[in-house]
This record gives sequence, C-alpha cells and structure tokens, in this order.
Amino acid sequence: MDFTTKFNAWVSLTESGLDRYVPAAHTRPQRLHQAMRYSLESGGKRLRPVLVLAATELFDPKLRGDPLPAAVAVECVHTYSLIHDDLPCMDNDDLRRGRATAHRAFDEATALLAGDALLTHAFFLLATHYATRPAVATSLVAELGAAAGSLRLIGGQMEDLLAENRPDTHPADLEFIHLNKTSAMIEAAVVMGARLGGAGDREVESVRRASRDLGLAFQIIDDILDATEPSTTLGKTAGKDAKAGKSTYVSLYGLEKARRLAEERSAAALEGWRALPGDTTFLVALTQWLTGRRK
Amino acid sequence: MDFTTKFNAWVSLTESGLDRYVPAAHTRPQRLHQAMRYSLESGGKRLRPVLVLAATELFDPKLRGDPLPAAVAVECVHTYSLIHDDLPCMDNDDLRRGRATAHRAFDEATALLAGDALLTHAFFLLATHYATRPAVATSLVAELGAAAGSLRLIGGQMEDLLAENRPDTHPADLEFIHLNKTSAMIEAAVVMGARLGGAGDREVESVRRASRDLGLAFQIIDDILDATEPSTTLGKTAGKDAKAGKSTYVSLYGLEKARRLAEERSAAALEGWRALPGDTTFLVALTQWLTGRRK
Repeated sequence: MDFTTKFNAWVSLTESGLDRYVPAAHTRPQRLHQAMRYSLESGGKRLRPVLVLAATELFDPKLRGDPLPAAVAVECVHTYSLIHDDLPCMDNDDLRRGRATAHRAFDEATALLAGDALLTHAFFLLATHYATRPAVATSLVAELGAAAGSLRLIGGQMEDLLAENRPDTHPADLEFIHLNKTSAMIEAAVVMGARLGGAGDREVESVRRASRDLGLAFQIIDDILDATEPSTTLGKTAGKDAKAGKSTYVSLYGLEKARRLAEERSAAALEGWRALPGDTTFLVALTQWLTGRRK
Repeated sequence: MDFTTKFNAWVSLTESGLDRYVPAAHTRPQRLHQAMRYSLESGGKRLRPVLVLAATELFDPKLRGDPLPAAVAVECVHTYSLIHDDLPCMDNDDLRRGRATAHRAFDEATALLAGDALLTHAFFLLATHYATRPAVATSLVAELGAAAGSLRLIGGQMEDLLAENRPDTHPADLEFIHLNKTSAMIEAAVVMGARLGGAGDREVESVRRASRDLGLAFQIIDDILDATEPSTTLGKTAGKDAKAGKSTYVSLYGLEKARRLAEERSAAALEGWRALPGDTTFLVALTQWLTGRRK
C-alpha cells in the first residue's frame, strides 16, 4: 500500500473512532456534545492519531493493544487545545480548518466547556478502554498527562502568549515554545503508539527523540507557511504571528535559514526512524510529506 | 480526636500535599504556575480532599494506598472548575473565597490555561503516584474522568448556563444540574477514597449512593445560603443565582421546603454512612456539620 493510501485509511479509521468513542451529539446536554463533535469533525490532518496508529505497527504484533481509543484520546486533546487557543482571550480567531471556530459557531462558554470536556474525555477513554491492561493504561495516562500539562503543552502556550509583541524573543525561548506547544503532543502520540505496540523503555526513548525532531520540523514549516501562504490555502488566518508581533523561525532567521533548519530537523527525524526495528517506511514517507507540505 | 480537630488535621495534610504534588511557583513558565498555586492556595473548605482521606480510612487498613495524591488530584479538578466557572464568559465573578478570582488577579488567558493545567495535572498525578498499583490507578482515573466529564461536572455546568434567565426551570432539570455540577465530584472523592482503602464493588456502590445524597444536601444548602447570607459571610458574591435569573431550590420550593429537602437528603446520607462497615463517626459528623453550616 502506498503512503497516501495508508495515510487516508488511517484517517478514516480515526474518524470512525471519533464517532464511536465520543458521546453522540444528541447526548444530554446536546449543545455541549454538539460543540465537542463540531470541533472534532472539522477535519484537519489527523496527524497525531495517525502517528499513534503508525507507531503501534512498528513493534511486536503479538503485544499489540488496539491503538484506536488511544488515537482518539490524542485527537481529543489536540482538538481541545485548538478550541481554547482560538478563544477571544487567547488568539481570538474566527476561522479554523476553513470553518467558524467553536466559540463563533456556538458561544464562548460552550466552547470553553467543550474543550474542558474533550480533555477530560481523553483520560477517561484511556482508563476505560485499556482497563484490562492496567499497566499500559497507566503509562498512557502518564504520558498524555505529561505532554498536555503545565510543563509542556500548556507551558508552551503560556510562553507563546507572553511572547506577543516581543519580536526580540530569544531563539532558545522560541525553541521552548515550539518544543512544548507543538512537539510535546507529537512525541506523546508516537510514544503512546509505541507503548501499545509493546515497546520497551529503550525503544521508547529512541522514538521520543525522533518524534521530537519531527515535531520541531513540523512547527518550523508551520511558521514558514504562516508567512508565505494565503489564508485560503491554509484554512486558517494567515500571517497572524506577524500581526501579533510574535517571533517565528522566519522572523528570527529569515526564510532561507528557516527552511534549512526545518530540513535539518527533518533529516534528524528520518535518521531516527531508520535506526528503529520494524518497517519504518510509513514514518519515513510521512516525515518527507510533512516537510514538503504547502498547508 | 473530635470532628473539628480531625477535619483541620486533614485540611492541613491536604494543603501540605498541594504544596508537595503541584509544581513550585518558580517553575517555568512562572506566571502559569503562580496562577495555579494562587487558586489552589485560596483556601476553601477542602471538603473533597477531606472526603478522599476519610473514605480511605473506612476500609481495610492493610489494603490502604496513600490517599494524599488522590486527594490533591480531586482538589486540582475542583479548583480548575471554579477558575473556569468564574471567567467572564461563564459567571463573570470577581470574588472567590474572599480574594480576587484568578482572571482578576492575573488575566483571562492565564486563568484559562491555569485551569487547563490543573485538570491535566490531576490525571498525571493519579497515573504517576499509583503506578505501582496500576489497577487502582486506572480505576481512579476512570472515576475522576467520568465525574469531571461531559455527562457529569461539565454537563451540569452547561445546563446551569442554559438555565440562566429561565426561572421556570423544571425541578427535574434543576436536580440534573445539581447532581452533576455538585454531587459528581463529591461522589468521586468518596469513591476514590474507598477504592484506595480497598473497597469492593458492592461497598463502592453503597458509598456512592450516600455521597450522592450528601452532595445534593450540600448543594441545596448552598442555594439557601446564596439567598439568605451576605457576600461578606460567604466570601463570594451572594444572590447571584437570583440575579442571573436562575432557578434554585429556594426559588422553586421556597425557603422552608428547601430546608426540609436538604434535611431529607442529609438524613439519607447519614443512613447510608451508618450502614457501612468501619468507623463512620467522622462522615456522620461531617454530614451534620455541612447541613448546619452558615457559609
């Protein structure tokens, strides 16, 4: 199966999982569940759940647990982070994936609560679907909790906010933001998939390093696209970092050097995947595709 | 040890646990961790963590795990729910426990993120501190996730919002709000404590029923105090339900019947505690104290 076919198959599987493992839109309170599903069903690349599924496949098939609930949990956390990030007190964005953001389609309070509920649901899913393998369940909750917590995802978002109107941000601070705001969840997705595939601690550290490089490459390319592509291509408001007076890889290093840094990180990720046991063809192709993407 | 001495000892233990199990205020990003701690350190009754500690004591001492991390996790979730509930898009409240609310002391974005981080931290704490007893850890995460999720805590908050300016709310809908907005976390606290004490499924169902009655009694009394006591006594804005045009037990049933309903729920909780094995003196005294409280 070629890369695109496999990727699309995993996206479909993820979307069927979202439908299956998140309460139906008519569940009481309906408005809340409609908002949760509205945001989950807004599409997007489904990169993080696909990474969970791909990483599980790398390891011993006999040890595998069904990675779909974990993939759904990771997408719930990603979606919650976007809903809260779009709120008026944060980025105040009207457009996400080409549609109205949750607080525009519903209202601020509903968007806030839908985000809270998606975050909570992610941990509930892990604890209930892997209850028969409690050591795995516990390690998945710990991994996701660390990645989404105050030292990583939320810490990165906090520093990202503090960097507004500070175009002189130090390169090390920008790396802190990107390592935590973006890489943390990409890393967690791959590590959770690897754990479900039965990876041991040493293998987990190898995939963690490679996925961190992938996450940084991904974010540098996001900065480049934000500076060079129109909103219509991106499906979200373009040029908003510059407008908010935020430093980006492009503003700090210029377009050419930013491209080179993305390629370096991408090359490091590729090297990391190739050193792993198992068939890493998909992860290699995914990394190349993400580095070359235009949106 | 009499009730008050024991209660205060558990409050002190909880507060030392909050200090120990939540990242220090100087942790990067400082502003985020300062806001998390500001809200955690605002005092309050510490009812939910004390319930975790009290419920653990009821069961077999040999099976006991240290309940303090779980007590801290429950207080983190409770505090997050207050921070988000106070935000301008929700109750828009300036005062909580006699101090400025988080978004007034910091700003809206910081308060939003501090709440998100506290919620996430709760699950992380459970998964890391009980990792050596993964079946217990998994059941605690599932219990807390269910109580704080879209069907319960968040569902109750959503319907509470939808009930604004609808003073004709149906009594069954008001009970839905209170069962989920208030009782859910009280129930989870007691059940988590019982699980840590080694309670079996049948005992868990008994404590669940009694704590649900306690939670409803607690909320009816909150409605009564909101209608009868000044803000200075409560340490929060009084009369805000009436101002928001929300139904309460007082507006639906009148003060006298609301008091009688609270007493009925309290009596049901007392009966539930007395039917349990172990020494329930503390839970009985706690229920009587909560029913008679003035703030």
